[in-house]
Amino acid sequence: MPETKTKKDEDFNEWYNEIVELADLCDKRYPIKGMNIWRPYGWKLMNNVDGLIRHEMEKTNHQEVYFPLLIPESFFKKEEEHIEGFGSEVYWITHAGTNELEERWLLRPTSETAMYPIFSLWIRSHSDLPLKIFQIVNTFRYETKQTRAFIRVREIHFFEAHTCHKDFDDAEGQIEEDKAIADRFLKRLCLPYVFSKRPDWDKFAGAYYTISIDILMPSGRTLQIGSIHQYRDNFSKPYEISYETEEGTHAYCHQTTYGMSERLLGAIIGVHGDNKGLVIPPEVAPIQVVIIPIIFKGKEQGVMDACNALHNKLKDENIRSRVDTRETTPGNKYYDWELKGVPLRVEIGPRDLEKNEIVIVRRDTSEKKSILQKGAEEAIKNELDKIATTLFNDADNVLNENMHRVLTVDEAKNKKGIIELPWCGNEGCALEVEDILEGNTLGEPIEDTKCGHSCPICSKPSKTWMRFARTY
Amino acid sequence: MPETKTKKDEDFNEWYNEIVELADLCDKRYPIKGMNIWRPYGWKLMNNVDGLIRHEMEKTNHQEVYFPLLIPESFFKKEEEHIEGFGSEVYWITHAGTNELEERWLLRPTSETAMYPIFSLWIRSHSDLPLKIFQIVNTFRYETKQTRAFIRVREIHFFEAHTCHKDFDDAEGQIEEDKAIADRFLKRLCLPYVFSKRPDWDKFAGAYYTISIDILMPSGRTLQIGSIHQYRDNFSKPYEISYETEEGTHAYCHQTTYGMSERLLGAIIGVHGDNKGLVIPPEVAPIQVVIIPIIFKGKEQGVMDACNALHNKLKDENIRSRVDTRETTPGNKYYDWELKGVPLRVEIGPRDLEKNEIVIVRRDTSEKKSILQKGAEEAIKNELDKIATTLFNDADNVLNENMHRVLTVDEAKNKKGIIELPWCGNEGCALEVEDILEGNTLGEPIEDTKCGHSCPICSKPSKTWMRFARTY
Repeated sequence: MPETKTKKDEDFNEWYNEIVELADLCDKRYPIKGMNIWRPYGWKLMNNVDGLIRHEMEKTNHQEVYFPLLIPESFFKKEEEHIEGFGSEVYWITHAGTNELEERWLLRPTSETAMYPIFSLWIRSHSDLPLKIFQIVNTFRYETKQTRAFIRVREIHFFEAHTCHKDFDDAEGQIEEDKAIADRFLKRLCLPYVFSKRPDWDKFAGAYYTISIDILMPSGRTLQIGSIHQYRDNFSKPYEISYETEEGTHAYCHQTTYGMSERLLGAIIGVHGDNKGLVIPPEVAPIQVVIIPIIFKGKEQGVMDACNALHNKLKDENIRSRVDTRETTPGNKYYDWELKGVPLRVEIGPRDLEKNEIVIVRRDTSEKKSILQKGAEEAIKNELDKIATTLFNDADNVLNENMHRVLTVDEAKNKKGIIELPWCGNEGCALEVEDILEGNTLGEPIEDTKCGHSCPICSKPSKTWMRFARTY
Repeated sequence: MPETKTKKDEDFNEWYNEIVELADLCDKRYPIKGMNIWRPYGWKLMNNVDGLIRHEMEKTNHQEVYFPLLIPESFFKKEEEHIEGFGSEVYWITHAGTNELEERWLLRPTSETAMYPIFSLWIRSHSDLPLKIFQIVNTFRYETKQTRAFIRVREIHFFEAHTCHKDFDDAEGQIEEDKAIADRFLKRLCLPYVFSKRPDWDKFAGAYYTISIDILMPSGRTLQIGSIHQYRDNFSKPYEISYETEEGTHAYCHQTTYGMSERLLGAIIGVHGDNKGLVIPPEVAPIQVVIIPIIFKGKEQGVMDACNALHNKLKDENIRSRVDTRETTPGNKYYDWELKGVPLRVEIGPRDLEKNEIVIVRRDTSEKKSILQKGAEEAIKNELDKIATTLFNDADNVLNENMHRVLTVDEAKNKKGIIELPWCGNEGCALEVEDILEGNTLGEPIEDTKCGHSCPICSKPSKTWMRFARTY
């Protein structure tokens, strides 16, 4: 069976770069660095992922909006930390036609500064709260590091939810809801994850605290695919988002945001793919089942009829399938659809039909078996569920094998993945560990945080653990 | 019954401006002129319209892509007429962070110049043709005229299909398909339209010819909601989109595009709305049926059960409904949902339930009647279809009453709507008619074009008719 030129376990990064183009997800030949073209297959996959997010948002009473792309410089500059964090990576519009603008506009790097002056108009009274909105848009950041498809780009497909609450506790409740959303949603992508509370020096610009959502990639590096932020009233004060309480006094809102990006695709590709290509989780696969007619001369019609009948039955069950009628060998077809990560292949030939059977082949395990034609749609549905379970469990095992709670930097040194070390709370100690491990501070675990050991750098007692990893 | 402050037939433009905000479609308070905020209800409506477009694209084998927003100046400048047409209305990015860019980038005003250099990489051989792609994105044009929500904005929600063909005739076939798509699609929005072939001096910058799709608004002005362009090889030559023919020679592609914008919403609002608010065509209504419980003390439970049961039955039929459980009077609820244009209202009270009935009220005609609870979902489905038919027929009657084929400018002068006059083919004569009628040249009819009369300006024989109208 043909395989990718580069092997995944030999050079993960090169394998990744190769696969995103081979599988027709994107075209990297656009002349602006970090701005790639979404090809139909990649765009469909992204849209399916967006669909799951929309579904979660609907269930939790968030409403979808669209705010303008362009933000006036004066809006942007109202929150000091925010502009410090983003100022060096925004794109500026200075001219319209041949006219110089009176005020510069920037392309949204994220939408706080576009939305919050308007929230202050929308929110008047406690009865307007909580406000829960989201949008799915592209954001723009001037990345100076090396770009990588879906992982580090300059035009970023982005989901952002923004909420306003009557007080800190109500906002904390939102963060609990966000964590539950992340858990359900990432399970549907078969992606195990870790939540970490970012250290203060690495939280979102303007946030009170930040919870990052990280995926472990097979290279041993973590990929941050999203984050949840508690803003407290850090933005509501400069943007004057206040309301009249039930008692008739005025109070500032407490706010949260929740963001995830096209890095989700990077995680799907990296975690599940293999040397034959992509392996797409069934729930978001553009094609969930590909049906290959095995044609022998003179028997074409019966085979094609059976393929089309199965396609229609699957359609009735809301399973996305395609009959591959191209004039090429079955082998070539297997190759193409394995590369594209279609979770399940069906082969239908005259000999199978004589036995009232069809053949199914799992993309993840290559397991092949015959099933009865009758009721095939139910068996296929079950098989797709099994594939999802296997994908999640396999990835979860890898994550668990690569989470190491150790007490000394020496023990940490030869470990791959995510390292947890006792931490005294001192930034300097964490940065020293970063230096030694050539990694980054990921953040504190948000559960099972208690630590009775001493800091491996300064030996002071440590109340908490701190995670370190090499990151994308 | 409360009505809008401004009456539609007294001051259409003011009525329109009022209704778009009252009905929660958009918020015009964003500080950049012509860049409005899509509120949840408006965005849902736009997404439903996009959904119909996607459905048509899928049926006709177009594939959805996403090309970057930013276009390098050098890409943009390859086709001379195009830059002449758009150069004065594009936004320029000159800086990233604090760095000045080596080459300026512009925000897409439309995507020819982003896509076509890439098409030249995608297309190699006749077997790659036809290429049929589309995207739904926002485009940016620096409008200097007065802005108006959905009708004249600077960030424009936009559908654009781009196709490449082996020759002119094959591209002509695509234009026939596009016209059929427009016909099906606009019927689902209950919008009658006219196709006109734009005069040469007003075609799309770079096109060989342009067919505009115009809707007649109640003000008597036409609104161009879309256009279909035949490019011939005007773009494929400068962008080098060529292919190897079956005979082994090389040829340039012939190209077409098809675009429609958020003006579709402007047309829906303008054509169907009335003094009570919006009237949304059933196929795209975010809420197709609103169910109002008529509660009397002690009878709540039975009524609420009946409301919820109907809601669930409608859901099974893929009809979008909502039970309005807010604590306010039924009258207030009627008012709100009439303003928002929900096509059908259901009222359920204890007296109706005693008779096993429910009450339905049409938004378009205010017609009210009782129907049996049993099978109500079928009756409601039929009623929604009837509403769609009425909306289309009413608008079609208005269009037909306001299309005038006349022979002299004097006859034309006191007519409202679209005027057809004999035309000699001379630009000067058309411009003189524009002056006299204070209108614009819309274009030639594409059917029933034969004219044996003389030009009302120069008296020369005229082979064709030319349409004139005041336009948005």
